[in-house]
Amino acid sequence: MKYMNNRRTFVKNGLGVFAALSLPILPAEATPASNYRPKLGVAGYSFVNFNLDDSLKMMKRMQIQYLCIKDFHLPFKSTDAEIAEFHKKLAESGVKGYAVGPIYMTKSLEEIDNAFEYAKRVGVDLIIGIPRKEDLAYISKKADEYGIRYALHNHGPEDKLYPNSTSIYDLIKNLSPKIGICFDMGHNARDGQDSVKDLKRYSSRIFDMHLKNITEASAAGKTTELSRGVIDIPAFVKTLKSIQYQGVCSLEFEKDMNDPLAGLAESAGYFRGVVDVVCP
Amino acid sequence: MKYMNNRRTFVKNGLGVFAALSLPILPAEATPASNYRPKLGVAGYSFVNFNLDDSLKMMKRMQIQYLCIKDFHLPFKSTDAEIAEFHKKLAESGVKGYAVGPIYMTKSLEEIDNAFEYAKRVGVDLIIGIPRKEDLAYISKKADEYGIRYALHNHGPEDKLYPNSTSIYDLIKNLSPKIGICFDMGHNARDGQDSVKDLKRYSSRIFDMHLKNITEASAAGKTTELSRGVIDIPAFVKTLKSIQYQGVCSLEFEKDMNDPLAGLAESAGYFRGVVDVVCP
Repeated sequence: MKYMNNRRTFVKNGLGVFAALSLPILPAEATPASNYRPKLGVAGYSFVNFNLDDSLKMMKRMQIQYLCIKDFHLPFKSTDAEIAEFHKKLAESGVKGYAVGPIYMTKSLEEIDNAFEYAKRVGVDLIIGIPRKEDLAYISKKADEYGIRYALHNHGPEDKLYPNSTSIYDLIKNLSPKIGICFDMGHNARDGQDSVKDLKRYSSRIFDMHLKNITEASAAGKTTELSRGVIDIPAFVKTLKSIQYQGVCSLEFEKDMNDPLAGLAESAGYFRGVVDVVCP
Repeated sequence: MKYMNNRRTFVKNGLGVFAALSLPILPAEATPASNYRPKLGVAGYSFVNFNLDDSLKMMKRMQIQYLCIKDFHLPFKSTDAEIAEFHKKLAESGVKGYAVGPIYMTKSLEEIDNAFEYAKRVGVDLIIGIPRKEDLAYISKKADEYGIRYALHNHGPEDKLYPNSTSIYDLIKNLSPKIGICFDMGHNARDGQDSVKDLKRYSSRIFDMHLKNITEASAAGKTTELSRGVIDIPAFVKTLKSIQYQGVCSLEFEKDMNDPLAGLAESAGYFRGVVDVVCP
């Protein structure tokens, strides 16, 4: 059947998965418009209460292939051998660790240095970070030196540094093109911003994304399943397509964190359903 | 936000759920075309390994509001008091039991009589059944007498009676309009049929549906998450809309039956995602 012989073959064929995972994830590598499909991933924080093995079991069950690596799964001080073992374990579940973070680095320049060294040793080209504003020029220089992109994360109205994507963009727009945004569409909306418009507005600088929905567009809003919140996900996916977003859309499910699989799976299904119609 | 103030309010507002559930589910009651949205349910068989309480916990978590009742959750010999208690329990989880079955009745007319009495006492207007072909005229008469519809279930290439929807339609097309099909789109495709075309072709007689996908369009095909199979679900949902299907689309997830929540949730999410784009 036609449907099976195009995009679905990729998911169903184990070899296909691993071949795909060996491709580097770089914004420069534009997918042709007609075949555009956003990548679905998971932000490691969704699994804060689970060890790596149990997290990977969930990812495998959902057939999600991209993980943003948190240090509770791969400590900063890991040896090269431990890092190799980590990647091997991910590959066995059909998963690629595509970035590290979010990493807080609000105390010293040494934390920034360590983060770049860690990312280099892990072998990813993207750090999600929360730095001091005064260190941004330093980070911009490091990003160019290492050839590693750095995306700042916005965390909503409680975040005195980066409540929304505009607050980040205004600070980075004249820095290296390797400095960008990890667009938390939920916290952005919790701060009263329009996450569909901001996705388009800052598309050139959005390197990563925390895919989620929220119960209300205010500080009281909580993460909810992708299908059940106030952000218009179909409009969001149409915008992903129109900007040809090349990063990963990583689910960060800050609900039922002791038993997140059902909500993550419902959210993954919803995203795929919207994508299958918007990006046929 | 616009998005929240229309269709989502229904899901989020507990009173809204119960108000909606008090509406009868009848094909005559056409939803206006512009607001068309198919109803999502679960076929009780998905919970064959779970008692009613645990099944309802899963339904509540997925916010699925329609259940096709299997006798392992509500035995045929239940008293009226037990039936009342059953409905009360469902309502507490925001769930409506909208039909009974599938019920096998291949041995005697008494089984048919019992099924109609059971449906009447349960208070539903729809029986899903597997009868003998020679009893169809009898069933047609009973359906008219009771004012209860009767939908025959197709069960794929292994089913000597009703392998696909065509085999049912050809037998019932001249019977009472209360005799129809519980369209198992997966088993229909396993029998080599085109489930999107058959949905359209037999739309006047499709009263209920087992929503699923399958790994391949042959006898070897197995149930899989809605997003992962060979049936083109976006095309299927577009057809639901074009025929203005008024029944329930009930997930029957014959995979991971000892731990079905993740697959059911992913499937529910996928369906909602497709529907949100196709039926905005």
